[in-house]
Amino acid sequence: MFLGCWPERGPDQGASRQHRGSIMGNFFGRQRNAYVRVSLPAVCFVWQIAMIILFGVFIRYNEESDAHWVEHKKTNNITSDIENDFYYRYPSFQDVHVMIFVGFGFLMTFLKRYSFGGVGFNFLIAAFGIQWALLMQGWFHFLDHSTGKIYIGVENLINADFCVAGSLIAYGALLGKVSPVQLLVLTLFGVTLFAVEEYIILHLLHCRDAGGSMVIHAFGGYYGLGISWVLYRPNLHQSKRLHGSVYHSDVFAMIGTLFLWMFWPSFNSAITDHGDGQHRAAINTYLGLASCVLTTVALSSMHDKRGRLDMVHIQNATLAGGVAMGTAAEFMISPYGALIVGFCCGIISTFGYLYVTPFLEKYLKLQDTCGVHNLHAVPGMLGGFVGAIVAAAATESVYSKEGLINTFNFEGKYADRSVGTQGGYQAAGTCVAVAFGLVGGAIVGFILKFPIWGDPADDNCFDDEAYWEVPEDEETIPPVLEYNNHMIHKHQDIAETNFSVEQS
Amino acid sequence: MFLGCWPERGPDQGASRQHRGSIMGNFFGRQRNAYVRVSLPAVCFVWQIAMIILFGVFIRYNEESDAHWVEHKKTNNITSDIENDFYYRYPSFQDVHVMIFVGFGFLMTFLKRYSFGGVGFNFLIAAFGIQWALLMQGWFHFLDHSTGKIYIGVENLINADFCVAGSLIAYGALLGKVSPVQLLVLTLFGVTLFAVEEYIILHLLHCRDAGGSMVIHAFGGYYGLGISWVLYRPNLHQSKRLHGSVYHSDVFAMIGTLFLWMFWPSFNSAITDHGDGQHRAAINTYLGLASCVLTTVALSSMHDKRGRLDMVHIQNATLAGGVAMGTAAEFMISPYGALIVGFCCGIISTFGYLYVTPFLEKYLKLQDTCGVHNLHAVPGMLGGFVGAIVAAAATESVYSKEGLINTFNFEGKYADRSVGTQGGYQAAGTCVAVAFGLVGGAIVGFILKFPIWGDPADDNCFDDEAYWEVPEDEETIPPVLEYNNHMIHKHQDIAETNFSVEQS
Amino acid sequence: MFLGCWPERGPDQGASRQHRGSIMGNFFGRQRNAYVRVSLPAVCFVWQIAMIILFGVFIRYNEESDAHWVEHKKTNNITSDIENDFYYRYPSFQDVHVMIFVGFGFLMTFLKRYSFGGVGFNFLIAAFGIQWALLMQGWFHFLDHSTGKIYIGVENLINADFCVAGSLIAYGALLGKVSPVQLLVLTLFGVTLFAVEEYIILHLLHCRDAGGSMVIHAFGGYYGLGISWVLYRPNLHQSKRLHGSVYHSDVFAMIGTLFLWMFWPSFNSAITDHGDGQHRAAINTYLGLASCVLTTVALSSMHDKRGRLDMVHIQNATLAGGVAMGTAAEFMISPYGALIVGFCCGIISTFGYLYVTPFLEKYLKLQDTCGVHNLHAVPGMLGGFVGAIVAAAATESVYSKEGLINTFNFEGKYADRSVGTQGGYQAAGTCVAVAFGLVGGAIVGFILKFPIWGDPADDNCFDDEAYWEVPEDEETIPPVLEYNNHMIHKHQDIAETNFSVEQS
Repeated sequence: MFLGCWPERGPDQGASRQHRGSIMGNFFGRQRNAYVRVSLPAVCFVWQIAMIILFGVFIRYNEESDAHWVEHKKTNNITSDIENDFYYRYPSFQDVHVMIFVGFGFLMTFLKRYSFGGVGFNFLIAAFGIQWALLMQGWFHFLDHSTGKIYIGVENLINADFCVAGSLIAYGALLGKVSPVQLLVLTLFGVTLFAVEEYIILHLLHCRDAGGSMVIHAFGGYYGLGISWVLYRPNLHQSKRLHGSVYHSDVFAMIGTLFLWMFWPSFNSAITDHGDGQHRAAINTYLGLASCVLTTVALSSMHDKRGRLDMVHIQNATLAGGVAMGTAAEFMISPYGALIVGFCCGIISTFGYLYVTPFLEKYLKLQDTCGVHNLHAVPGMLGGFVGAIVAAAATESVYSKEGLINTFNFEGKYADRSVGTQGGYQAAGTCVAVAFGLVGGAIVGFILKFPIWGDPADDNCFDDEAYWEVPEDEETIPPVLEYNNHMIHKHQDIAETNFSVEQS
Repeated sequence: MFLGCWPERGPDQGASRQHRGSIMGNFFGRQRNAYVRVSLPAVCFVWQIAMIILFGVFIRYNEESDAHWVEHKKTNNITSDIENDFYYRYPSFQDVHVMIFVGFGFLMTFLKRYSFGGVGFNFLIAAFGIQWALLMQGWFHFLDHSTGKIYIGVENLINADFCVAGSLIAYGALLGKVSPVQLLVLTLFGVTLFAVEEYIILHLLHCRDAGGSMVIHAFGGYYGLGISWVLYRPNLHQSKRLHGSVYHSDVFAMIGTLFLWMFWPSFNSAITDHGDGQHRAAINTYLGLASCVLTTVALSSMHDKRGRLDMVHIQNATLAGGVAMGTAAEFMISPYGALIVGFCCGIISTFGYLYVTPFLEKYLKLQDTCGVHNLHAVPGMLGGFVGAIVAAAATESVYSKEGLINTFNFEGKYADRSVGTQGGYQAAGTCVAVAFGLVGGAIVGFILKFPIWGDPADDNCFDDEAYWEVPEDEETIPPVLEYNNHMIHKHQDIAETNFSVEQS
Repeated sequence: MFLGCWPERGPDQGASRQHRGSIMGNFFGRQRNAYVRVSLPAVCFVWQIAMIILFGVFIRYNEESDAHWVEHKKTNNITSDIENDFYYRYPSFQDVHVMIFVGFGFLMTFLKRYSFGGVGFNFLIAAFGIQWALLMQGWFHFLDHSTGKIYIGVENLINADFCVAGSLIAYGALLGKVSPVQLLVLTLFGVTLFAVEEYIILHLLHCRDAGGSMVIHAFGGYYGLGISWVLYRPNLHQSKRLHGSVYHSDVFAMIGTLFLWMFWPSFNSAITDHGDGQHRAAINTYLGLASCVLTTVALSSMHDKRGRLDMVHIQNATLAGGVAMGTAAEFMISPYGALIVGFCCGIISTFGYLYVTPFLEKYLKLQDTCGVHNLHAVPGMLGGFVGAIVAAAATESVYSKEGLINTFNFEGKYADRSVGTQGGYQAAGTCVAVAFGLVGGAIVGFILKFPIWGDPADDNCFDDEAYWEVPEDEETIPPVLEYNNHMIHKHQDIAETNFSVEQS
């Protein structure tokens, strides 16, 4: 009676359908993505078994998640179970988890026939990526050199979610144009590169980046753009018919948008300092995002000659304020500072969707399905520089002496670093993230060009039928179309009778 | 292959489409909502800039979100970061945030062609409203008169979300009949009125209303009804074809319903007293809501001659129990008391959808798209009176001496207030909320009648095409319709050949 | 303009529609589910009134949610409100709540025309079930024998949600084949049986089962299968046309899948021990689920000859890892142990969907709409045995002396129980759960066979029209179909003219 209700097949139609099937078989089914049936299970099994072995060798519970906690409490004079880091971070962790799986996943359901791929492949690569991230980040940041083990707790789970976000952002640029095997490869390398650049930025340069403007968004965005640039498809117009949304797919995408938007304060505050750090990061992000919505709407409306809004902008550019607050959220940027950042990012991001993405596609041969350039790459880079400026402008009167040390972690060998120097390092960190993204993306792009990954043919991009058993919507029949059909056949009879009469 | 897949346009169709476009242009595009292209961006920009300036002048972090927290802890003998209010309230805040953006937003996606407007404009006005609410509520409740600043923390964010809920409820009454500019004006005044009535009810009358039965729901509901009464459209039947749901839009609306229903315990407990206050409010709301579902289903089924349920009731009336528990949730209403409140509200609210809304439309010229009268106005008012009764019935044996003082905040100049007096004030507070809603709504309604806000024409209500670039669903073609089309053209050829043969 | 937009009815169509309506009237409307109009409201009202009375007699706030908390704190030397159990468990409770209402609800929207019933009846029976569960579990576990009262707090709310999950799982096996009255009866008995088996397993056998592999999933799964076996419909093929998904219903179901998947760590950790217990349970579940996704994808892809994925597997089998971690999550299973459990369960569950469900239907006459056999029954049973093995393998060096006592609650009369014995009891508990499910299900199945519950006719299964007022989607007309229709009529005219010319 509603969607997906088409007339029953007559003999001709069945044939036509079958014909289409065989065309598909010829053009991509048997030729291009035939390998998927072998390569996808193989990659999944081999990598999952590798994860089990590596986890067996390296990963253990940390002291707060281990059954020895009862003794640990006593030795460390911890008076209450509520002091377990779990209670500081678990609510934020679950919000971040929702952003990764529902937020990113549903944001990518907007295409008319790629909703399965959008939400399903996001699910697949995130589930793989978080395991690999626990290992990679563990080796770089949490390895106990005396035992050779990585001890994990809730903060590691959050970091793993963050780490995989970089690869999911990259997927946004490639949505509809790659196979699940390519995505798994992209994630393997993406998580690896992420762990390295994170190590350089957070440890070697001693930057602060709790919400990941630099390490997640700038890196992830440019990583995706790098790959997409290498994988340029000159004949992508062949699947142009599927490169757009339908009414309800846009509503589905709003689920993604809103869960990202609402939980971004948790994203930016999840791993900041206990107490005022988490508190302030949440407030700043909340404000940056609110401001961003208004300028996005303003620009979107200005651009249309009848003042109408474009769902693409509402779904994406409204989030740029959260991206750009990723570094500075935990600093004393002050509430109006957060509003200003959001204000600018709403404009920049919407402007990007209106003018930069078409420009990139036309002149730089860069196809960016979700416009991650405007939502992640540029706002992330800006967020890095905002963080640098706010850090450089920090004063003891604003932060208090101890507050300054806490916020920027000026301890140990960094005890003497000035805020100006810190600002410089923050800016340098942003450049490192962008460079890692672009160079890493280009290299991974070339790896993904090998013809063994089962990528879709040009005329099968943005089409779930390539990798999913899509429900056959033709079995039922709406009464009215039945009627139409009935009328058609009636005409046919008439016409044919006619015709034969004519010819006789 | 499924929804939104229509045959490619032949020359005729293109023309027909264009024709329709130009009709639209004549009737509303160029005439009525032409201003939106100017007014919407202008209002967004001007107001957002105003927010930045006012935030710069007034808003600062409070002691728990400021970097001085480290020192504050020492001076106040706070032993642990977990005592920061952030950890008491942030999980509830995020739940409330989901209710505001996904709950209210998706609840309004039920119309067949107004899902973009339902969820999108809800997003826009909430994002603006929370900023203005931080200022308005700050001036009334949180202004430090020595410094002239408003110091904000997580409780302010929750209150801002609450404050904007009043305007979102009002939007429910007007859904599909107003322009985004009108909605922004509605929100500006709605938040302002909210802050004033809240000041009167909570501070001057010293009422308790943690979940906002009075200040949010009764006010918001009557505010929307007041506006809708003034904006009555006698010719609304012209867009009757769009005034209903389709199958999947009803499923989308269930997302809104369920997130509201599930998180209502957080809504009613978010700003109650630490400890037993939050705990009890959550339990009472949980029970009130559960009970409400059963009586809603019972009444909905009774009304249909085949016992079938109506989605309108399930989507809305099931929530009335949460609305009605808004005031009494933190009191010792006792678990069975909560069940009774839910029981009655399910009946009253469903009855309202069945009989009162049609009556209001027919005899009072009151068009209430979402039926906020039955979901917010009446249950909110009832909740206010339930709160008054429960307060008046409070005893020291049930609450304990200190518990009574804590729960009703009988401190300072209210130390001598009796529970009976408190009950009277609670009832008075409810009347204040209703009066503010009705009078304020009527006044704002007249302001919204100015012909400068770009409201839609009568035959374009409930239609996203007025304010959104709706995806053109015609580019792809389902195999079966293709076949149909093909057959049509074939017949056409035959018929025309035939015809020409005939004529020759 | 999109889905649900069909041409206006000509006289013929109206007739055809009406005809269909009358057929429906004859076959099920007036005959089979006519009782629903009486029985559904009656059951709802009577049971809700019973709940109110029983709550009035038995249910009170516990010391942490009672206003006496202020005094309780003093007498018990509790220094801070944050020590209230509310702050340990409320975030997890809300996650569990989302799983029950959105997770289970939307997972059951996948059928093309049973989305209302999937999410709506889930809502109804959960709302009833949690009330009855508070009583049943209260009588068995929380009754204070000195006062004869049940004292409830947030932990009881979580347990009530858990308890009702058993019945919701059973609903999954029966989806589309039962009436709402049958579901309420199923839930009444399901909750009752649950409370008894839980008492036997957790108290008499002193098992640990925090995430409910045994008491929730194994019981619920086999309970549903037992009922479904009794209610076997040999002519179910009559509604085969509705027994499948459409594109967007599969996307809706992914909402359910993802919220279940994301929040499962909260499910398994919600009622474990404070501190390391909750922390570890979350980590283990997170890992088990991640691993499960990869093997599900692998197997699903291997099975299709073109390597395509099946949404049924992605929606369901990816969750089996969470089910199977229900018992062992709080134990020191170690991270790689969790990965192994997920690895195996992804394979077993997908294998079940591919081969076992068809086998059961064909040879055992067992119709299992959602495949709860593969998602709950088998993984739950396996989870019980995994728990037994991990318990039996526990050592003091891994847990620490106190950790072992804490984790397995070896206190009071169980102080001398060895881990080996514990393992044996865990295995026995699993068998108890399965037996209760199967036998209880068979008995309840016979009760549900009484012809008084208004069950749908065979040709009206999986059809929302039986119990819901489904929106009539025919009122509007898309421009293109209008065109088609127009063209059809035009041809008709031509053809007819032609024809008459011909004949003349």
